[in-house]
Amino acid sequence: MGIVVQKYGGSSLADADAIKRVARRIVDVKKSGHDVVVAVSAMGDTTDDLLDLATGVSPLPPAREMDMLLTAGERISMALVAMAISDLGFTARSFTGSQAGVITDSVHGKAKIIDVTPGRITQAIGEGHIVIVAGFQGVSADTKEITTLGRGGTDTTAVALAAALEADVCEIYTDVDGVFTADPRIVPSARKLGRVSYEEMLELAACGAKILHLRCVEYGRRYGIPIHVRSSFSQLEGTWVVNDPQLSGPSQGETMEQPIIAGVAHDRSEAKITVVGVPDKVGEAARIFEALADAQINLDMIVQNISAAATSLTDISFTLPRSDGQTAMTALARIQAEVGYDKLLYDDKIGKVSLIGAGMRSHPGITSKFFGALASAGVNIGMISTSEIRISVIVDENAVDDAVRATHTAFDLDADEVEAVVYGGTGR
Amino acid sequence: MGIVVQKYGGSSLADADAIKRVARRIVDVKKSGHDVVVAVSAMGDTTDDLLDLATGVSPLPPAREMDMLLTAGERISMALVAMAISDLGFTARSFTGSQAGVITDSVHGKAKIIDVTPGRITQAIGEGHIVIVAGFQGVSADTKEITTLGRGGTDTTAVALAAALEADVCEIYTDVDGVFTADPRIVPSARKLGRVSYEEMLELAACGAKILHLRCVEYGRRYGIPIHVRSSFSQLEGTWVVNDPQLSGPSQGETMEQPIIAGVAHDRSEAKITVVGVPDKVGEAARIFEALADAQINLDMIVQNISAAATSLTDISFTLPRSDGQTAMTALARIQAEVGYDKLLYDDKIGKVSLIGAGMRSHPGITSKFFGALASAGVNIGMISTSEIRISVIVDENAVDDAVRATHTAFDLDADEVEAVVYGGTGR
Repeated sequence: MGIVVQKYGGSSLADADAIKRVARRIVDVKKSGHDVVVAVSAMGDTTDDLLDLATGVSPLPPAREMDMLLTAGERISMALVAMAISDLGFTARSFTGSQAGVITDSVHGKAKIIDVTPGRITQAIGEGHIVIVAGFQGVSADTKEITTLGRGGTDTTAVALAAALEADVCEIYTDVDGVFTADPRIVPSARKLGRVSYEEMLELAACGAKILHLRCVEYGRRYGIPIHVRSSFSQLEGTWVVNDPQLSGPSQGETMEQPIIAGVAHDRSEAKITVVGVPDKVGEAARIFEALADAQINLDMIVQNISAAATSLTDISFTLPRSDGQTAMTALARIQAEVGYDKLLYDDKIGKVSLIGAGMRSHPGITSKFFGALASAGVNIGMISTSEIRISVIVDENAVDDAVRATHTAFDLDADEVEAVVYGGTGR
Repeated sequence: MGIVVQKYGGSSLADADAIKRVARRIVDVKKSGHDVVVAVSAMGDTTDDLLDLATGVSPLPPAREMDMLLTAGERISMALVAMAISDLGFTARSFTGSQAGVITDSVHGKAKIIDVTPGRITQAIGEGHIVIVAGFQGVSADTKEITTLGRGGTDTTAVALAAALEADVCEIYTDVDGVFTADPRIVPSARKLGRVSYEEMLELAACGAKILHLRCVEYGRRYGIPIHVRSSFSQLEGTWVVNDPQLSGPSQGETMEQPIIAGVAHDRSEAKITVVGVPDKVGEAARIFEALADAQINLDMIVQNISAAATSLTDISFTLPRSDGQTAMTALARIQAEVGYDKLLYDDKIGKVSLIGAGMRSHPGITSKFFGALASAGVNIGMISTSEIRISVIVDENAVDDAVRATHTAFDLDADEVEAVVYGGTGR
């Protein structure tokens, strides 16, 4: 029997009872003959509490010390999970990210895993222990400093461990039953997906479905690790994220025919900035995006209006995380004289609705059906962007729910039976 | 200017305001031209909160995981102190015990420091940073596991760092003004000692004065590190613990003539066990103490009554920490048949009062004066033990306060002026 890697998020580790329940689940897998390695997030609200403490002593804490502080959260939860396992008569060894060999670059607060050297883990497994690893954290290769991977990073820790240990599966336990065709809080008839491809899951994650960390899916795809997203509050089969939903993973009747559309995602965390009256000359747009890149801002959609010949001026609009809005506006204001644009417009009352499905590659007419559904629901489209397997539109923030519901129905995604679930983030 | 090592206990780091105050104090020393290395305890009640969490998931948590859990406390406080320093425009680097090179044996929960390899600290100092180190913790030499030093361990961390860094002084900041001739809660006229010798401080610490961790004083004596115990809530000079109070440390008029008695300590944390009717044969007593040693119990006083010739039976009494009482009784009950003693008596309504002073070496009559004072106060003496510079008696728990006051007055320790202080533990 091989190695099973599991990840439990903060909501699955909210208190002592939750930790004991998680311990029983872990022990059950060990009893079934597998070796078990578990990545844990900080308990419940621990991270927010630690952030509050930091804010209390410094308005702008150094990133290095912030990482030192936040990593205490997983240290607490991993020790408690190990204790609860020991109380069930099994032995567990907890390891920090550094001890577990999670090697990262040195970007505090959003480090990337560059290697995993799990010597202590394999030794502990060899000695018969269950291994608990602090998620979300690592140690930088060059400076040996403690780093964190950013929100949702424990998902990535789990998949990276699964890859390094050549695990059979990486199970991501969360507080929902799996990946749904839409947020069930908006679309009560949303269906749980039995399987979804890495590609689709990447697009879903990038478009606002908070169920899996984006880098976790990228890691899973790169190393071909089957990811099983499921609830820690039930024994139900969840959603398998696999290479080709039709070929791999355990068989499930309903997935024999791959649906065209995997789901409808939405995102209310973005804002739109429009740079009005940019001189339509070579290099001006580049100067704008260079300033934003220097400010470490990741843009999402970008639209450049066609220049009005009479004026030789153009408008450039783009979307970005709302949390970066202030930084971006400041960076752009600083280059106004240099670039010579007219003014900046800022709009954070927007939402993004995305239709995602690998099947749209081979099925024409998806776009017109999507836009038709939005028009019937009276939803105005602002910006549009597409990938091979995704169409995203920016709409008014208040129109997001209507847009999601109309799209979900138009593509026949509604389930016959309503499942009672709560759809939410997975902590970190 | 040399290196100053400081230690701040949990009561000095109770909340954000306290941490900011500590940061200002640290920065003041840096501004005065010294390099500063600071050992911190966990904030306020953090350790108790973590212990509660552990109790919630397991009645008997494994010691390794308990250490993993508890060390999160100092990780949090050290990061916050570093952030608060950064907010004052100085740079700080926090290090865990492991990162700071605090190497211990592998006894979880009460590890001993066996070496300090402060390479990262000296590098950070060289780069101009203030260094904050997590107290109370280290990493085991052989197994590379995280260990803790036991309650009060941060004092020891501080002195060990001071020794390894060849610091000028180790300042132990606490919530009282220094070391007093008695607990001011019992004796309001108790005086703060300007200086005290390592030897006397060792006896005071061993006899219940909770102001300094015993191993901290041992470490200070071995490496000749002047320890300055003082309040983090005032700028007052505290108590200097030095090699010879008359020769070293900054000059202070009142210490030119070394007083005979340093102070009166008391301890209500012990219990007494009497083994009644032990056959008065060679080896029986040894068998009893062997059983207690096997159970890892540290005894304090031991008294063996003279055997009554008619019976050839003897009684053996000893004192031990109350927290070990149950373990000791169980260990002794197990050997009853083998040793053939009659019965066990357990008494935890006792207290210990100790008179300590290096001057008693050269001044006869101290014992009779001590016992006379107790008799005048109507206090019955149970057991007696002495060292070269200490006399301890066991009395009824309820007689402790009277005994301390009577002794304090008899030896002219009362101050002319009453100082308003609170005498208490230093956290860990």
